[in-house]
Amino acid sequence: MSILIHNCTAVLMDEAGTVLPGAYVAVEGSKIVSVGAQRPAGDFETEIDGKGGVLMPGFVNAHTHVPMTAMRGYGDGNNLQDWLNNYIFPVEARWDDRAIRACTDLGLAEMIASGVTCIADMYGHSPAIAQSVADSGISANLSVGGVQFSDDFDPDTHNDCRVQRELTETWHGYNDGQILADASVHGEYTSHHQLWRWMAGYARDHGLGMHVHISETRSEHEACLARHGKTPIQILNDYGVWDTRAIAAHCVYTTPEDWAIMAEKGISAVHNPMSNLKLGSGIAPVPAMKKAGVNVALGTDGVSSNNCTDFFGDLKLAAILHNGAGCDPLALLPMDALRMATCDGARALGRRTGVIAPGYTADLILVDFSHLNLTPCHSVVSNLAYAAHGSDVAMNMARGKVIYKDGEFLTIDLERVRREVADYALPLLFPEK
Amino acid sequence: MSILIHNCTAVLMDEAGTVLPGAYVAVEGSKIVSVGAQRPAGDFETEIDGKGGVLMPGFVNAHTHVPMTAMRGYGDGNNLQDWLNNYIFPVEARWDDRAIRACTDLGLAEMIASGVTCIADMYGHSPAIAQSVADSGISANLSVGGVQFSDDFDPDTHNDCRVQRELTETWHGYNDGQILADASVHGEYTSHHQLWRWMAGYARDHGLGMHVHISETRSEHEACLARHGKTPIQILNDYGVWDTRAIAAHCVYTTPEDWAIMAEKGISAVHNPMSNLKLGSGIAPVPAMKKAGVNVALGTDGVSSNNCTDFFGDLKLAAILHNGAGCDPLALLPMDALRMATCDGARALGRRTGVIAPGYTADLILVDFSHLNLTPCHSVVSNLAYAAHGSDVAMNMARGKVIYKDGEFLTIDLERVRREVADYALPLLFPEK
Repeated sequence: MSILIHNCTAVLMDEAGTVLPGAYVAVEGSKIVSVGAQRPAGDFETEIDGKGGVLMPGFVNAHTHVPMTAMRGYGDGNNLQDWLNNYIFPVEARWDDRAIRACTDLGLAEMIASGVTCIADMYGHSPAIAQSVADSGISANLSVGGVQFSDDFDPDTHNDCRVQRELTETWHGYNDGQILADASVHGEYTSHHQLWRWMAGYARDHGLGMHVHISETRSEHEACLARHGKTPIQILNDYGVWDTRAIAAHCVYTTPEDWAIMAEKGISAVHNPMSNLKLGSGIAPVPAMKKAGVNVALGTDGVSSNNCTDFFGDLKLAAILHNGAGCDPLALLPMDALRMATCDGARALGRRTGVIAPGYTADLILVDFSHLNLTPCHSVVSNLAYAAHGSDVAMNMARGKVIYKDGEFLTIDLERVRREVADYALPLLFPEK
Repeated sequence: MSILIHNCTAVLMDEAGTVLPGAYVAVEGSKIVSVGAQRPAGDFETEIDGKGGVLMPGFVNAHTHVPMTAMRGYGDGNNLQDWLNNYIFPVEARWDDRAIRACTDLGLAEMIASGVTCIADMYGHSPAIAQSVADSGISANLSVGGVQFSDDFDPDTHNDCRVQRELTETWHGYNDGQILADASVHGEYTSHHQLWRWMAGYARDHGLGMHVHISETRSEHEACLARHGKTPIQILNDYGVWDTRAIAAHCVYTTPEDWAIMAEKGISAVHNPMSNLKLGSGIAPVPAMKKAGVNVALGTDGVSSNNCTDFFGDLKLAAILHNGAGCDPLALLPMDALRMATCDGARALGRRTGVIAPGYTADLILVDFSHLNLTPCHSVVSNLAYAAHGSDVAMNMARGKVIYKDGEFLTIDLERVRREVADYALPLLFPEK
């Protein structure tokens, strides 16, 4: 299948930050094969008219929990412990695979409509999530979010080790890498060293990445210091957790010593500004981490703590928050935020996407710049980072296939999903309602 | 003209925070005449089916500069002084009334589409802005943004005094209060005591409110302290500037002593979180101001420093920012943010709107809760504050008249406006392009 996209301005997200008017982008199968200002030779099975819009890489949502879309706004207005113990955990105990599928489909649809083409998800029931992702057409690094609440640990029977093995064996590398299994530790505070060591070894033996919640709240960070005399980054480092490509979500309370480890080991931080603000976690030191050489990606976190997935909203918040928090209007530039949302996210996930260049995966979105909120346009990059909304996404192409166009989903049967959520998942999860 | 809106859940924004399912809201002329769970007696000329959506008061954008929509993203990535001196001020010197009209129409359309029904605008050429507002159907408090750069001050010839008189005489009270003229001082740092005294007296003599930029940046606040030994709130208080209903925009560096004056005098603070973050101004002490008894409203500021007007985005940021900045997930609740955006904004502007109750102005928006980002709905209030986007606004009714419905503008000829902006205003303002 060969496709030519033309009549658009392409924001390549290459090193030089190229914005290419009158771009021609050719796609063959799941890959970009050429990019330029001249029409490439040859015929194309399909031509897509960009109608004067802006083509950019699809967004990489580098930390999320898609099924939690079911809990949008549930228990809001409670403090964190009450929210978790009285609202979130009781609901999570009721999941089955059918409900996971329905709520994942719903969450993926919302993401796709706002321009996401790739995610790193952490949640139990990840094999069921994998099936939804596979059907949707986007790419995903999936992880279980391994927990260990007792010192008594047998990897042969431990539930999260079992699910990890099932995920890896069934899904890792599926469809030329559309789905990758990552190893995972939910967090330092929800596990013990036996799990850390096992996951580190499992990742090494199977060539997997690693996904961990790190220093999201002050209390979590300080409790770790009190327990171990080391930060979460440091203690997990002692157990080899970072001896592979790794995603460290949140990093709000990480220290300069942590950043040195992260830069050296190639650990990517994932900034989740909406969730960190809403839940009162704090403001991650993003400019300082970047200055220390840490790769910083962008995530929405789960809908239960965001409470939506307009990825352009998260991008804008990432772009402006650190200017305000540091009283420096140049702390992050619009292009810095766009990189976090695309190429730097791709690096976090170990994927060749997030850049429009030959050989990269054809994860592309077309943004309709005729909309009022993008008029006038003095700077394409500035309009993308500060003024665009999810509702400006006119097309989402994932792995070379158009999966969303002009408000229609081409891989998700939205009416069926809505029925499954309303008639099956919500009654199961919220029986008191 | 009598209208009945039904088949919706109404968020009344009354003291009790009532959320009324199956609501009937009746409108007669520009006013709400009844609200209840039963169909009111009598016939209605028009019935509006809410289609299961959520009806709430339209948003009050309590601090903006609408014509600056023309400068969206212009000069982004420069520091504040370079941005103002090399980009904004040279463009502002080129305005004429025709360009002002076109760019105001464009900005108002963007606001209306995101649910705004009432604004407080500060900009020169305010009589031209008034004509656009009048035609659009929304309500506005307009002010000139008076500056005084020389000690040599003659109110008979001073330009901003002249424009203030023209604005008041031509527009104050227009159409039963659709337009109100406010007196104004652009800021302490852009004027002298002669203007402060004159504006204070003019407001008193003509029964006007007052609109001032206050303590937006640390340097502005500290320079005032160095000049006068007092904060901007305090020194303007000495000249009677606050002896009327007053809007103090930004208030990022206001002090507890300032808040005491603000609470006593009834000065409303306007929080502009997008602008304050993007420009690196800082984070206004909103929870502390509210605790001190200050009324806090919400504004977008101009598009040049925002860079768009999805009012739901500003609402969400206001709702979550202070939780994160103060590490307190309950610093502001969703309902607090909704109040800032509606009834508290109305109080700032001295208007009987922002609440769905008999006798209030029929400024109402209908939000389509069938959209993906509002599904599921565990809490209407939470979904509105955290998950809704401007693109969910299905209808905007201002002063009892539907001005926007299903993406169509009923009072603004958008094609004409786009042509005027592209063919006249932009070439005038940006001749080098």
